Amino acid sequence: MTERVLTGDRVTGKLHLGHYAGSLQNRVHLQDQYESLVFLADVQALTTHFERQEQIRTNIREMTLDYLSVGIDPEKSTIFIQSMIPEIAELTVYFSMFVSVNTLRHNPTIKAESQGRGLDELYYGFLGYPVSQAADIAICKATIIPVGDDQLPHLELARKIVRRFNELYQPILVEPQAMISNTPRLVGTDGNAKMSKSLGNAIELDSSAEDIAYRIKRAVTDPARVHKNDPGHPEICPIYAYHRAFGPDQLTEIREGCERGTMGCTACKERITLTLEKLIAPMRERRAFYASRPHLVDDILMTGTKYTRGIASATMKEVREAMSLDHFSLSAMERGML
Amino acid sequence: MTERVLTGDRVTGKLHLGHYAGSLQNRVHLQDQYESLVFLADVQALTTHFERQEQIRTNIREMTLDYLSVGIDPEKSTIFIQSMIPEIAELTVYFSMFVSVNTLRHNPTIKAESQGRGLDELYYGFLGYPVSQAADIAICKATIIPVGDDQLPHLELARKIVRRFNELYQPILVEPQAMISNTPRLVGTDGNAKMSKSLGNAIELDSSAEDIAYRIKRAVTDPARVHKNDPGHPEICPIYAYHRAFGPDQLTEIREGCERGTMGCTACKERITLTLEKLIAPMRERRAFYASRPHLVDDILMTGTKYTRGIASATMKEVREAMSLDHFSLSAMERGML
Ligand code: SF4
Ligand code: SF4
Repeated sequence: MTERVLTGDRVTGKLHLGHYAGSLQNRVHLQDQYESLVFLADVQALTTHFERQEQIRTNIREMTLDYLSVGIDPEKSTIFIQSMIPEIAELTVYFSMFVSVNTLRHNPTIKAESQGRGLDELYYGFLGYPVSQAADIAICKATIIPVGDDQLPHLELARKIVRRFNELYQPILVEPQAMISNTPRLVGTDGNAKMSKSLGNAIELDSSAEDIAYRIKRAVTDPARVHKNDPGHPEICPIYAYHRAFGPDQLTEIREGCERGTMGCTACKERITLTLEKLIAPMRERRAFYASRPHLVDDILMTGTKYTRGIASATMKEVREAMSLDHFSLSAMERGML
Repeated sequence: MTERVLTGDRVTGKLHLGHYAGSLQNRVHLQDQYESLVFLADVQALTTHFERQEQIRTNIREMTLDYLSVGIDPEKSTIFIQSMIPEIAELTVYFSMFVSVNTLRHNPTIKAESQGRGLDELYYGFLGYPVSQAADIAICKATIIPVGDDQLPHLELARKIVRRFNELYQPILVEPQAMISNTPRLVGTDGNAKMSKSLGNAIELDSSAEDIAYRIKRAVTDPARVHKNDPGHPEICPIYAYHRAFGPDQLTEIREGCERGTMGCTACKERITLTLEKLIAPMRERRAFYASRPHLVDDILMTGTKYTRGIASATMKEVREAMSLDHFSLSAMERGML
């Protein structure tokens, strides 16, 4: 069996360096080794953005440009839109019959959310997030799911749901394997543990050279370095984290310069600005190429969606047979229906 | 706007006189006045029967014969299979984004169930039953839903979900009206308030003359009537309930004979046996007609399902537009995709 990798992102905003370091970079490598599907999770974006549906529409195009700009190559990867695979909703409904509410409530992410916001604010679709993720994976017959440590419980639940289906009906679904990535989460420019657009501490993938310079200039550093020659603590500095993530070859030099107080923060920031500009410049170029060709982007999305829909409808055909929901013979269906 | 009536039954077993008195009889009248859709709720049957999928498959054919036998006329009513309208699952998923878990937990039916069986046993799909009912109704743009008093809370929730969708996005969905039926629930032959196959107290619509006679013979009556001339209390007797439901013209005579002790239970039972045989004989005939023509039944189901799917996909097209999920222009879709 060919290994098939599935990755995706909720369509809630433009992507930034945190996404690049955490997953996009990895996807670009994976597409050379495996069959690779990448999806724009617009349905799952609705779990929190159901009142901001216009944003989702805009974000679809922006995120597709993000994907293409980092080097996700439509010749190698299939990019598709979740809401255009209605089979996912069908499978979500079938899975939901045998997943208990308690299992979902004890899922760490849901638990954190329901404690933070209270059950009143917990929506049924949000509670079912892991069910719909299991359907995303199963409908594509994905074999490998790259995940961070924090997403492992979700994947474990998806595996459990697939196993349960296979036990209950017929073993037609594929239990996906986790490919754990050890990339540490990228800190924000304000030192917050998480780079996030909504926190205003992100460097977006479509940043101009000026944007990068500005963001880095305003970024916090080790507060102990009041004077240029004060020894610094790179481990607590976001700039150092960016050097580590995007310019590892200079890392020893930077650390020593900082710790010995021989390199000032301004010089250090200038170097990371250069490194990031070198990283982002080719992205900017690819983005400009695709941004000026909206029909090409449409074709990429449609081709990818059509390809995935072929996989999805084949899976649903098997699901229906396994569940004894194939109420008409194929010949009868072909004669009259589908 | 033409009024469109939607009714349906979970595909969990053959139908009986309780169903006939409670809803089927009414549907036969309604199909002369309104556009009428009747559906076999096989997906909702899975909420409790996910481990008995083979039963559902068999029940689909049996229930279709039940429908046809009571006089639901395929020339007047559209009969369709829920699982063959995948658009219902899609709309269920979209509705689920803005329906809170608390609303669902406080729904009387769900509440009763979760108290009886505990949250551990409550499945996610079962909790979402009202959401999927709302989707059934909304996808068909049904305007009238015949309900018993006990189902009113479900319908109220469906109306609320539709209103919320219309507020959030665009007012494209139809808020259905309840048509409340005052038919009292039919008692079982054992005197239990509910006739139910699983209680073994039901008279099924496919009963033979012998079945009817046997069921009535074994039915309980007023236990106060030890001797033939003891005065009886018809109000507590199932046989009297059947006279009221199916032979109302003889009702005064029966009541007086029972209360005065001038008519014995055996005679009374013989009369209801005759009445029921007169009711069921033409059903049996229609059933035999269709049972010997399985391809005709398939055609009826396929035609009805195809017709409904046309309505459903038109509704989903509007839903996608309203939710800004119409990611490609129609012309692009036609060129490449659907
Ligand atoms: S020298 Fe560089 S790593 Fe050290 S504190 Fe300044 S910016 Fe951070
Ligand atoms: S006479 Fe008829 S109504 Fe009265 S108790 Fe007997 S069976 Fe029931």
